[in-house]
Amino acid sequence: MFLGKVIGTVWSTKKDEKLVGAKFLIVRKLDLDLNEKSDFVIAVDSVGAGEGEVVLVATGSSSRQTHFTQDKPIDAVIMAIVDKLDISIKQLLEDNADA
Amino acid sequence: MFLGKVIGTVWSTKKDEKLVGAKFLIVRKLDLDLNEKSDFVIAVDSVGAGEGEVVLVATGSSSRQTHFTQDKPIDAVIMAIVDKLDISIKQLLEDNADA
Amino acid sequence: MFLGKVIGTVWSTKKDEKLVGAKFLIVRKLDLDLNEKSDFVIAVDSVGAGEGEVVLVATGSSSRQTHFTQDKPIDAVIMAIVDKLDISIKQLLEDNADA
Amino acid sequence: MFLGKVIGTVWSTKKDEKLVGAKFLIVRKLDLDLNEKSDFVIAVDSVGAGEGEVVLVATGSSSRQTHFTQDKPIDAVIMAIVDKLDISIKQLLEDNADA
Amino acid sequence: MFLGKVIGTVWSTKKDEKLVGAKFLIVRKLDLDLNEKSDFVIAVDSVGAGEGEVVLVATGSSSRQTHFTQDKPIDAVIMAIVDKLDISIKQLLEDNADA
Repeated sequence: MFLGKVIGTVWSTKKDEKLVGAKFLIVRKLDLDLNEKSDFVIAVDSVGAGEGEVVLVATGSSSRQTHFTQDKPIDAVIMAIVDKLDISIKQLLEDNADA
Repeated sequence: MFLGKVIGTVWSTKKDEKLVGAKFLIVRKLDLDLNEKSDFVIAVDSVGAGEGEVVLVATGSSSRQTHFTQDKPIDAVIMAIVDKLDISIKQLLEDNADA
Repeated sequence: MFLGKVIGTVWSTKKDEKLVGAKFLIVRKLDLDLNEKSDFVIAVDSVGAGEGEVVLVATGSSSRQTHFTQDKPIDAVIMAIVDKLDISIKQLLEDNADA
Repeated sequence: MFLGKVIGTVWSTKKDEKLVGAKFLIVRKLDLDLNEKSDFVIAVDSVGAGEGEVVLVATGSSSRQTHFTQDKPIDAVIMAIVDKLDISIKQLLEDNADA
Repeated sequence: MFLGKVIGTVWSTKKDEKLVGAKFLIVRKLDLDLNEKSDFVIAVDSVGAGEGEVVLVATGSSSRQTHFTQDKPIDAVIMAIVDKLDISIKQLLEDNADA
């Protein structure tokens, strides 16, 4: 999975019939300091994520494994909303030493 | 999914028998300002997309989940035509502050 | 799918038993002007493609959806030979304006 | 698979119901000298990996092939903890000659 | 598939139970002149490949299509040992003209 932030919504009227009711969110990728990268994907929401929230996105066939997304023609799903990241103190010290 | 724009068509006579009738469209990737990137993919159309339209493309096994593309040897499908993007005001302000 | 050009063949005697009879072609990726990129993949041929031909390549699980490649341990298949590309006049004018 | 190092944990309360009990670990990619790259993924643990350990991560549909991850909407799993790498002497000599 | 060279082995005691007996090889990607790139993957061997050999690697769900790798949580398999590459004379002339 990758770490992302919901920054918007894609609206579509004409779409595959299986996608009626699907919410397409724009998710920007984040680094470990939660800074936004330029990369983004359009992912279907399965957990009620809202704008500004930090989320996990699963891609590929795994994105069809939630109750809502089963058998749908989509390749990215938001399957978790992130509360916090725990990064080991040792790691942070090493990162600072490198910087 | 990624955001793309239909810019042309690929014509093929000699192809896998399951692909008779498939329409191969050339789709260029777009950034969030709808500027075209240099990357492109060839995707099968499942929603009647035309040249110049902004679309969503699903890749991998998910591209075989529409009624038309089922069991076909293709790895990218246009499964939605985009009406508009909603990006939060807060996000736009941040982007401008960065620029 | 991506656009590619067949430039050679890979010969292998010792291979998975399901791959006896498979023809492994070297396919270089092309840009929209049909210039070769440095990237290449080894793909199994399912349509009788020959050296120098422009082809479409499908990757991942979709590469196992042709009659010949079913259930085989391969991740790229040539599933169409390209006759021509149609790119809209409007697009070409824009590209020239950018250049 | 890629070689990675566990550097932290992602905590999530609101997630797909199939993911209750899943442990999301932050895994940074490593090069062959075990130096950390900037790339990272969030992977589900299936082998009891802890912080600081060097692991193998499988991605895509293959990440759903462990007993614990079956049918879950995840696209990366830690499926092995690495004891050591054996790289041939010949290879190391060549690498040194290049440097 | 991509072209690679086996340069070493990954040893792991603690791994998913389906992986007992699997041989994890370190495979570096090669260009068409058989020069090693910096990229590498860890792949399971299904054809008895040894160090220094040039091989083909299939990734994703296709890596589970050999007799030995079926249903295993792995995303890369060595499914062929390469005897030689045939690249067309015309292609080589063009490459030299470019250089």
